[in-house]
Amino acid sequence: MPEMDSSTTLAELRELVGRFVAERDWRQFHSPKNLSMSLAIEAAELMEHFQWIDIAESRRVGCEPAKLLEIRDEIADVLCYLLALANELDLDLSQAVRDKMVKNAVKYPADRSRGRYDPPPRTS
Amino acid sequence: MPEMDSSTTLAELRELVGRFVAERDWRQFHSPKNLSMSLAIEAAELMEHFQWIDIAESRRVGCEPAKLLEIRDEIADVLCYLLALANELDLDLSQAVRDKMVKNAVKYPADRSRGRYDPPPRTS
Amino acid sequence: MPEMDSSTTLAELRELVGRFVAERDWRQFHSPKNLSMSLAIEAAELMEHFQWIDIAESRRVGCEPAKLLEIRDEIADVLCYLLALANELDLDLSQAVRDKMVKNAVKYPADRSRGRYDPPPRTS
Amino acid sequence: MPEMDSSTTLAELRELVGRFVAERDWRQFHSPKNLSMSLAIEAAELMEHFQWIDIAESRRVGCEPAKLLEIRDEIADVLCYLLALANELDLDLSQAVRDKMVKNAVKYPADRSRGRYDPPPRTS
Repeated sequence: MPEMDSSTTLAELRELVGRFVAERDWRQFHSPKNLSMSLAIEAAELMEHFQWIDIAESRRVGCEPAKLLEIRDEIADVLCYLLALANELDLDLSQAVRDKMVKNAVKYPADRSRGRYDPPPRTS
Repeated sequence: MPEMDSSTTLAELRELVGRFVAERDWRQFHSPKNLSMSLAIEAAELMEHFQWIDIAESRRVGCEPAKLLEIRDEIADVLCYLLALANELDLDLSQAVRDKMVKNAVKYPADRSRGRYDPPPRTS
Repeated sequence: MPEMDSSTTLAELRELVGRFVAERDWRQFHSPKNLSMSLAIEAAELMEHFQWIDIAESRRVGCEPAKLLEIRDEIADVLCYLLALANELDLDLSQAVRDKMVKNAVKYPADRSRGRYDPPPRTS
Repeated sequence: MPEMDSSTTLAELRELVGRFVAERDWRQFHSPKNLSMSLAIEAAELMEHFQWIDIAESRRVGCEPAKLLEIRDEIADVLCYLLALANELDLDLSQAVRDKMVKNAVKYPADRSRGRYDPPPRTS
């Protein structure tokens, strides 16, 4: 696990983004509607790096340092907007992820979802 | 700052997602190309909650508990895929955010970006 | 109705795009998977023009010729990829739109959907 | 070329969508900002059909009638919102596509773009 992720809390990153936004008086632009658009826009910019390459090739971007740096910046953009949105809505991201993983575990039971990406048929 | 975000590291959430994926043998689907699509798809599902409402209304979703729960789940989905992508690419998200914020601070100097969302013209 | 749209068929635009793709030997990149990504990427680039402005302001872009030209180019990009995808899948777009509008008319009956964007509750 | 696309003009489809919108008094929701979100949302729903399959598999969806019908509906949704947006902005789509293809032909000269998806380096 990367070093800084092992010692950085979600709250610390949220505060970093929150300060940046406050210092520029940008909360006026940061409505949830606008931030949801920003997230989708940044996600698309990330996707652009994988648009024309095939799946196997996309697994090898980790070996191209210059390309990887660009991708890393796009991922950071997505995360920054996600943190800004959590700030605006005052949501606990860690709790939200944990709760969603519980739901996902019900929808995709480990034993019946092995190697298949669609939810298994429900048992009665 | 929400309680759990104050004590949860990025690494802990990454491990949670990583275990979920491993238990289902889903890394075969988790190429960066596919995960970038997943991110964009989940971002769009989040955006759907704000599609027809206006900006002011979107600021009030925090006061609608049922709606907020749905939005919270979509945000969790976006974050889960982001964590899965960081796992695949072995990126340090906290470092990536910090580095990007430094770049952003250069592009948007606080004093000249106050209340404007486009980058200020460069000074020579 | 704009002049050229009144006399141009979908087939003519499809042929224009089809020739462009063939002349560059690009069908190798134009899998439906890749083209669906391209569509989403171009849609996000279009959205970028409306990211930070409010709804009323977005209605006034028609009065800003320079901005409108940029938007027009993004709309053309979305349409070009849609035409390319229809070419790859050999779909009749006009028939697809007509069929979908029939479904939409059932889901959103005119009298019960006036001024509301969510489907009305079903009557038994 | 599919039969109906050979005889349907862009204007006819635009009128079909325009009437549907007018009958429901939906122009109040159809700001360019909102429609750009709708386009991105529908593009993502289309992409969902290709999320986990590989490129070769995506080329074979044309042979799965049930799947293809779903995809066709999503493509129709994207096109409907594109037509609605053209109506709101009073843009000539056919002219926009033609103009963009001229620009694309300059950016991607046929002889130097054969089999490569990125623009060739500029010659001086």
